[in-house]
Amino acid sequence: MWSTDSPFGPHNLPYGVFRHGGRPPRIGVRIGDSVLDLDGAEAADLILAGGALRRPVLNEFLALGRPQWTAVRHRIAELVTREEHRAEIEPLLVPLAEVELLLPFAVGDYVDFYSSEHHAMNVGRIFRPERPALPPNWKHLPIGYHGRAGTVVVSGTPVVRPSGQRSTPEGPVFGPSIRLDIEAEVGFVVGVPSNHGEPVPPSRFAEHVFGVVLVNDWSARDIQAWEYQPLGPFLGKSFATSVSPWVVPLEALAGAWVPAPHQDPPVLDYLRDDPHVGLDLRLAVDWNGTRISEPPFASMYWTPAQQLAHLTVNGASLRTGDLFASGTVSGPEKRQTGSLLELTLGGAEPVRLAGGAERTFLEDGDTITISATAPGLGGTVVDLGEVTGTVKPAVTIASLSV
Amino acid sequence: MWSTDSPFGPHNLPYGVFRHGGRPPRIGVRIGDSVLDLDGAEAADLILAGGALRRPVLNEFLALGRPQWTAVRHRIAELVTREEHRAEIEPLLVPLAEVELLLPFAVGDYVDFYSSEHHAMNVGRIFRPERPALPPNWKHLPIGYHGRAGTVVVSGTPVVRPSGQRSTPEGPVFGPSIRLDIEAEVGFVVGVPSNHGEPVPPSRFAEHVFGVVLVNDWSARDIQAWEYQPLGPFLGKSFATSVSPWVVPLEALAGAWVPAPHQDPPVLDYLRDDPHVGLDLRLAVDWNGTRISEPPFASMYWTPAQQLAHLTVNGASLRTGDLFASGTVSGPEKRQTGSLLELTLGGAEPVRLAGGAERTFLEDGDTITISATAPGLGGTVVDLGEVTGTVKPAVTIASLSV
Repeated sequence: MWSTDSPFGPHNLPYGVFRHGGRPPRIGVRIGDSVLDLDGAEAADLILAGGALRRPVLNEFLALGRPQWTAVRHRIAELVTREEHRAEIEPLLVPLAEVELLLPFAVGDYVDFYSSEHHAMNVGRIFRPERPALPPNWKHLPIGYHGRAGTVVVSGTPVVRPSGQRSTPEGPVFGPSIRLDIEAEVGFVVGVPSNHGEPVPPSRFAEHVFGVVLVNDWSARDIQAWEYQPLGPFLGKSFATSVSPWVVPLEALAGAWVPAPHQDPPVLDYLRDDPHVGLDLRLAVDWNGTRISEPPFASMYWTPAQQLAHLTVNGASLRTGDLFASGTVSGPEKRQTGSLLELTLGGAEPVRLAGGAERTFLEDGDTITISATAPGLGGTVVDLGEVTGTVKPAVTIASLSV
Repeated sequence: MWSTDSPFGPHNLPYGVFRHGGRPPRIGVRIGDSVLDLDGAEAADLILAGGALRRPVLNEFLALGRPQWTAVRHRIAELVTREEHRAEIEPLLVPLAEVELLLPFAVGDYVDFYSSEHHAMNVGRIFRPERPALPPNWKHLPIGYHGRAGTVVVSGTPVVRPSGQRSTPEGPVFGPSIRLDIEAEVGFVVGVPSNHGEPVPPSRFAEHVFGVVLVNDWSARDIQAWEYQPLGPFLGKSFATSVSPWVVPLEALAGAWVPAPHQDPPVLDYLRDDPHVGLDLRLAVDWNGTRISEPPFASMYWTPAQQLAHLTVNGASLRTGDLFASGTVSGPEKRQTGSLLELTLGGAEPVRLAGGAERTFLEDGDTITISATAPGLGGTVVDLGEVTGTVKPAVTIASLSV
């Protein structure tokens, strides 16, 4: 049976959806280097979830709510830690190496925030050098916007280099992006919906949010810079957003809450969270295998509970499967930034990868992997897995049958 | 049987979803002042659509594609025009007055464009008086952004006044919006999905787009003005977007295509549509029953086929149920503008409603109805129905159980 020595031990138990042996997608939970087939476990009456674990996506389970989430989690922990269950669960274990991991939930709306002060300062200096780096509203509200839910893909999905318009001194030209970038983020997965017209205060965060994924919000900086005024990012972001395959439940992160940065000026009442806490998730970004950055999620200015409260304060409803991401995670140091734009100072300073290759933005064939761990209770470590993606060459329109 | 004398005659045949007599939602088609129960018609083998009409939303039918859309449309037209079918369809007709109309399709992603030059000029002058009214990218690409799909609601749904932050000389304050506005738009409903990574050129518009709805993209101008830099509109729009209940198929609008405004400078190749045509939809906006504006959709600078091509040129995929809206429709005259912001010159010039009431922005209890007609073939008129909504007072957070 498993112990908490493994960062995917019974204190973690993230949920995902897998395919194995040519069968339809099934819900599973990761334990060590295995996947426990929860579809099979519910079919065998080892777990009772009203059939919600016998679906091809997590959504029905996500909608059950915290009491049920907790009950199922406790039951799974029993199954994987008590010797008396060994014979029952052994037939339900599949080696991780044999499965294909799928997008774990059908995404409702995807919202992306902009909640790292260091990132906002860095980007402001690069994109809007003529104005103060931090916009006047930045410390009063967690700035966010809606992204494209239909192009959220699971880790491992190739990312085709997008084409689009970029500005040149001779006017806009069309072609493959030449400033393809990443954004290392943390995403929060909504389980319990809310009523249209009713704000969700920060105190209700844990009632609605099920868990956490890692996010790479791929960004074409040249397309974005030309298009984003006045209505925000669109095609520069909408081609792909990758998420990690394992949704780590909030319960697994109980030991990772830490005081969030002091907020000055004080926030308006609807944004006050008590305790004012963030998550000590330690991200790492690898570029073709070279570790280039270690962004600290604990440094985020706006907390996830504040983001949720802001997102709904106008009465916007939540649906099961909604995903809201933190925005790029960047710490105060250059080697803590979550985008290549920042790491290379807008492309001015290349980074050197193992083997001597130099890079500013992504080249075809490059692979980016974002991983993270968090402190667990009792000195354990919780692994959030990884989100990875490899860049494929742009599709030329001529190559399509028009 | 029905004739084309009615604007909801057999040349129109819009699809919707209705509830009647306490039964679950069913798909229907509007004919005159009746709804033909298509669930019942498919159950009785009067129409063959592989079961797609026996669902609670249109999505499965929308995914079938144009040959099937056309076949079903022809069959419905036969059923409602040929005397020999009278006895078969009479039991399937429900008076429109007896049904509740529901959101006709599950919305995938919702994209909102900004494609009226008159609107962009008007808004630019009001929101960004210090800069040129039209942003430098405006004539090179159809500017757009993603809105919140989860708060797209069907006509008739009350609109709760949103609360949020607005800027004052003393700093941001929180409260109900005091500049609640409308945006009269036309929305396009995607039926056939596209492959991730493969752009959809303008020539394929009619392969993917099923039909048209009317859209009111309710907007809180005070919230929007404070939040929208640098990442675009968010809470100022996400509280509600209303759509008309009847999706008018493109076939019904075959007589409404007209040359679109000349584009100068010439657009990049991927945006060239041939023929370069828009739709002659004649919108009307009524405020508490007073006609305040008649926005001409034919005046839009960017065409729907160009919007679709732009939206996908970066490889972003389409899903069945995606909705993309035109942006506010405003013609060159003041009484042709599609927002109150424009009609009242930013709130400076009130409009007078029947009975003498004066208004700048919306007050609680106000009702806005947007309707439209289009020329049909052979001198007929095609009615697009209406999208209506009444403003309810803001929810105070204290009134919620926190």
